[in-house]
Amino acid sequence: MRDMYNVFHLAIPARDLDEAYNFYVKGLGCKLARRYSDRITLDFFGDQLVCHLSNEIDPNPKMYPRHFGITFRERRQFDNLYKLAKQRELPFFQDLMVRFEGMVEEHLTFFLIDPSNNLLEFKYYHDERMMY
Amino acid sequence: MRDMYNVFHLAIPARDLDEAYNFYVKGLGCKLARRYSDRITLDFFGDQLVCHLSNEIDPNPKMYPRHFGITFRERRQFDNLYKLAKQRELPFFQDLMVRFEGMVEEHLTFFLIDPSNNLLEFKYYHDERMMY
Amino acid sequence: MRDMYNVFHLAIPARDLDEAYNFYVKGLGCKLARRYSDRITLDFFGDQLVCHLSNEIDPNPKMYPRHFGITFRERRQFDNLYKLAKQRELPFFQDLMVRFEGMVEEHLTFFLIDPSNNLLEFKYYHDERMMY
Amino acid sequence: MRDMYNVFHLAIPARDLDEAYNFYVKGLGCKLARRYSDRITLDFFGDQLVCHLSNEIDPNPKMYPRHFGITFRERRQFDNLYKLAKQRELPFFQDLMVRFEGMVEEHLTFFLIDPSNNLLEFKYYHDERMMY
Amino acid sequence: MRDMYNVFHLAIPARDLDEAYNFYVKGLGCKLARRYSDRITLDFFGDQLVCHLSNEIDPNPKMYPRHFGITFRERRQFDNLYKLAKQRELPFFQDLMVRFEGMVEEHLTFFLIDPSNNLLEFKYYHDERMMY
Amino acid sequence: MRDMYNVFHLAIPARDLDEAYNFYVKGLGCKLARRYSDRITLDFFGDQLVCHLSNEIDPNPKMYPRHFGITFRERRQFDNLYKLAKQRELPFFQDLMVRFEGMVEEHLTFFLIDPSNNLLEFKYYHDERMMY
Amino acid sequence: MRDMYNVFHLAIPARDLDEAYNFYVKGLGCKLARRYSDRITLDFFGDQLVCHLSNEIDPNPKMYPRHFGITFRERRQFDNLYKLAKQRELPFFQDLMVRFEGMVEEHLTFFLIDPSNNLLEFKYYHDERMMY
Amino acid sequence: MRDMYNVFHLAIPARDLDEAYNFYVKGLGCKLARRYSDRITLDFFGDQLVCHLSNEIDPNPKMYPRHFGITFRERRQFDNLYKLAKQRELPFFQDLMVRFEGMVEEHLTFFLIDPSNNLLEFKYYHDERMMY
Repeated sequence: MRDMYNVFHLAIPARDLDEAYNFYVKGLGCKLARRYSDRITLDFFGDQLVCHLSNEIDPNPKMYPRHFGITFRERRQFDNLYKLAKQRELPFFQDLMVRFEGMVEEHLTFFLIDPSNNLLEFKYYHDERMMY
Repeated sequence: MRDMYNVFHLAIPARDLDEAYNFYVKGLGCKLARRYSDRITLDFFGDQLVCHLSNEIDPNPKMYPRHFGITFRERRQFDNLYKLAKQRELPFFQDLMVRFEGMVEEHLTFFLIDPSNNLLEFKYYHDERMMY
Repeated sequence: MRDMYNVFHLAIPARDLDEAYNFYVKGLGCKLARRYSDRITLDFFGDQLVCHLSNEIDPNPKMYPRHFGITFRERRQFDNLYKLAKQRELPFFQDLMVRFEGMVEEHLTFFLIDPSNNLLEFKYYHDERMMY
Repeated sequence: MRDMYNVFHLAIPARDLDEAYNFYVKGLGCKLARRYSDRITLDFFGDQLVCHLSNEIDPNPKMYPRHFGITFRERRQFDNLYKLAKQRELPFFQDLMVRFEGMVEEHLTFFLIDPSNNLLEFKYYHDERMMY
Repeated sequence: MRDMYNVFHLAIPARDLDEAYNFYVKGLGCKLARRYSDRITLDFFGDQLVCHLSNEIDPNPKMYPRHFGITFRERRQFDNLYKLAKQRELPFFQDLMVRFEGMVEEHLTFFLIDPSNNLLEFKYYHDERMMY
Repeated sequence: MRDMYNVFHLAIPARDLDEAYNFYVKGLGCKLARRYSDRITLDFFGDQLVCHLSNEIDPNPKMYPRHFGITFRERRQFDNLYKLAKQRELPFFQDLMVRFEGMVEEHLTFFLIDPSNNLLEFKYYHDERMMY
Repeated sequence: MRDMYNVFHLAIPARDLDEAYNFYVKGLGCKLARRYSDRITLDFFGDQLVCHLSNEIDPNPKMYPRHFGITFRERRQFDNLYKLAKQRELPFFQDLMVRFEGMVEEHLTFFLIDPSNNLLEFKYYHDERMMY
Repeated sequence: MRDMYNVFHLAIPARDLDEAYNFYVKGLGCKLARRYSDRITLDFFGDQLVCHLSNEIDPNPKMYPRHFGITFRERRQFDNLYKLAKQRELPFFQDLMVRFEGMVEEHLTFFLIDPSNNLLEFKYYHDERMMY
């Protein structure tokens, strides 16, 4: 288990801050902490995500080697997020699938893509020890 | 505060997995969870970091828009990590500095750079509400 | 102690939502959860505050009987918030003072006033059992 | 999640303290912390509620913009409170209803009204991320 | 450590419920949960104490074999309670003293006596492992 | 909720320490912390119980006004303890019954009696708010 | 309950460190913290296990008096680990069995044997109070 | 951090159960959970230690490869235990010393030896990340 008082932070590029706000706050339901002229900072599922205004946008995003997201301990949280993404019609890069089926590493996963081509992956493992 | 049972995960490129192992496990003191032919998965301060074998290495890394790391709630943890980085001679991209001095957002920060040019930032805020 | 998973929620009037946003998010450092045409919802120190667009503004606010706020368990959090309010020049309704001096109920307190005349009180008790 | 050691506090008017005591302690099952000649302080679901003797009673209370209450994380706590309110015949301002049906923001809610016309709302969201 | 969700409960005799209320709520600062014609139930430092109207009052109370109270993990909580007892002039059965001085079992202790001759002991051990 | 680091302690009479040890440790499954010539100290469901050698044994114990025990938050813990008491043939003073049936205060309860006529009550409430 | 911040540590012999790594990290899914020429240190279900290179291998291991392992509070964690051990074909010293059937001490247990003949036992008790 | 609800368990040989009881309960201050004819089970700093009656006693114990103990997160707990061991004259195998002085792995450590030649090590690291 991780320390509940520390925070992971991740900085990513955004070609437009309003777009990023719409995707992360209005879409994914993250909270806006601060807005500057060149970036917005978000409470992303309890960790910090910073979207920096930038033109270094990946024109051809692929699953590997860059993506980020949350692995949930409870199935209900994963299901709720999937339902939200579908209902609010967030753009999927890869819809729900099972990986490593039948193995102890088996997990559910789906990928979203934000307006600046950053990829987000959300996962749920049947065996919580496989989360790392 | 964040949920202690969920995990943030981040996937980044690594040009060589042994190099990545040396930097993150022997250097930074992270724990190795799994090793595959094309990636290693790490317990990175309680969250998950995955280093994928890749040749998409950024030849000219800059502070923005991409970096990641931990913001510590306790000063002692931040100081311990800084001391470790110095003692083990990990490569600094930016040594310890104060940002937003005198303001409520004031924090201590330093940047490391891993062997595949990924940038890591570690921070400590005097006012914990500014962590987001 | 309270349950960390439940949330207290409070709905208050706001004569203008941008004003409310500026006071609570940019000023106090609360996080914006959602914005609708007639209200904004905020993560207010971990609880929920909703500012409803309304013209029922109290023209002559007094300390009693209506106000709300947070009582901090740690002195440091109280001091940090007071410093933030001073530095960002938030409007004080009552500056820092000691109440019930010398008694077990002794506490530090200050009042802010938001742009719609809602009063906020922040407190710190030397004896945590007096928080209720 | 919120800090379990801090306390939200809310001050509201009460036209009569015995009435307030009967509603909140004997009715809702809150705990009495202190009683003064001009106010009573309560442990209200873990937070602090203070009823100040006052004649500033709202003669015509409406749902918006002023109400307060608890959003529960567990359905069982919400159901227990609803059952208590029904069994003890507490006055409802709005009986149980579903809001935003079919959407991710869907939640159960009911409103009570205290003897001084203060409105209380209790909620349960199917997706806990919508609590803010 | 103990389970934070369970509650220890203790039932004791009280010759008069108003007296008991005055001692425990107004004096010690406990919270009143419920009042019946024959008993009051209290939130006593997080556990439950029930004072039953009774004429089985011990006319000649002694330290042993019957008393009850709280052993605090933090020195500050112990000191705060001692200060409260002195300031509010609660009746001491035994003022502050050190027991087992110089040994690992060394602890601070004082005894109060309630209006129905029940004895309360509050303790602080320098070595927390000695609390049992 | 109560503080998990503090401990409630209760001192009761025991006419024979071996008897007390057999009832509490071998019977109820409590843990022995210390044994002296005149008392044993126990970890009683996370709190401290001290059995003092004494001849002040109540010859005619009644449910009120003196008894003590644990109120469980989880039904499973209550059921497990009842099963243990039955299987190990601990002496019941009052077998399992329902109190306040149909009301919000409804709870399950049973009483045991130790070899020195001290009464123990264990409870489970359907609505956890009624535990106080 | 135990303190979540302390760590139990256990040092055991290993005739070969690669073998130990394969069994504990690749097999059991523990995390590698550090590797030295004469030992590896592991995060073993949250506690520390150190495998020291040694030729003091027990040629004829028996269940008693030496073995170690984890007793799980949740059945699901126990079942997941059993499934992992089966699927990854870890060597069992004793397959799944029930001990003390029908008694309150009833528990599920299985034993593994590592490449250096150290025995590991994993358990699940229906009554959590029997874990000690 | 480790799960506070799970328990590490370790079984070790004891040539005499009274001796083991005296060392672990009366000496170290552990709690006795159960006593059988062939073993005693202990609450050892929150984990489970079982001493099995056995004649497989190591006649010539060495620090490596077998020992066990607790690594404390707080310096105060470590100091309290050292003080207890000195005051109660528990047998030291290795008195207090500093290991890896000046390095990030620096820690305080001392070894005790129980009556059956089992070695116990207690540690405190200045940098808590080095506990694994």
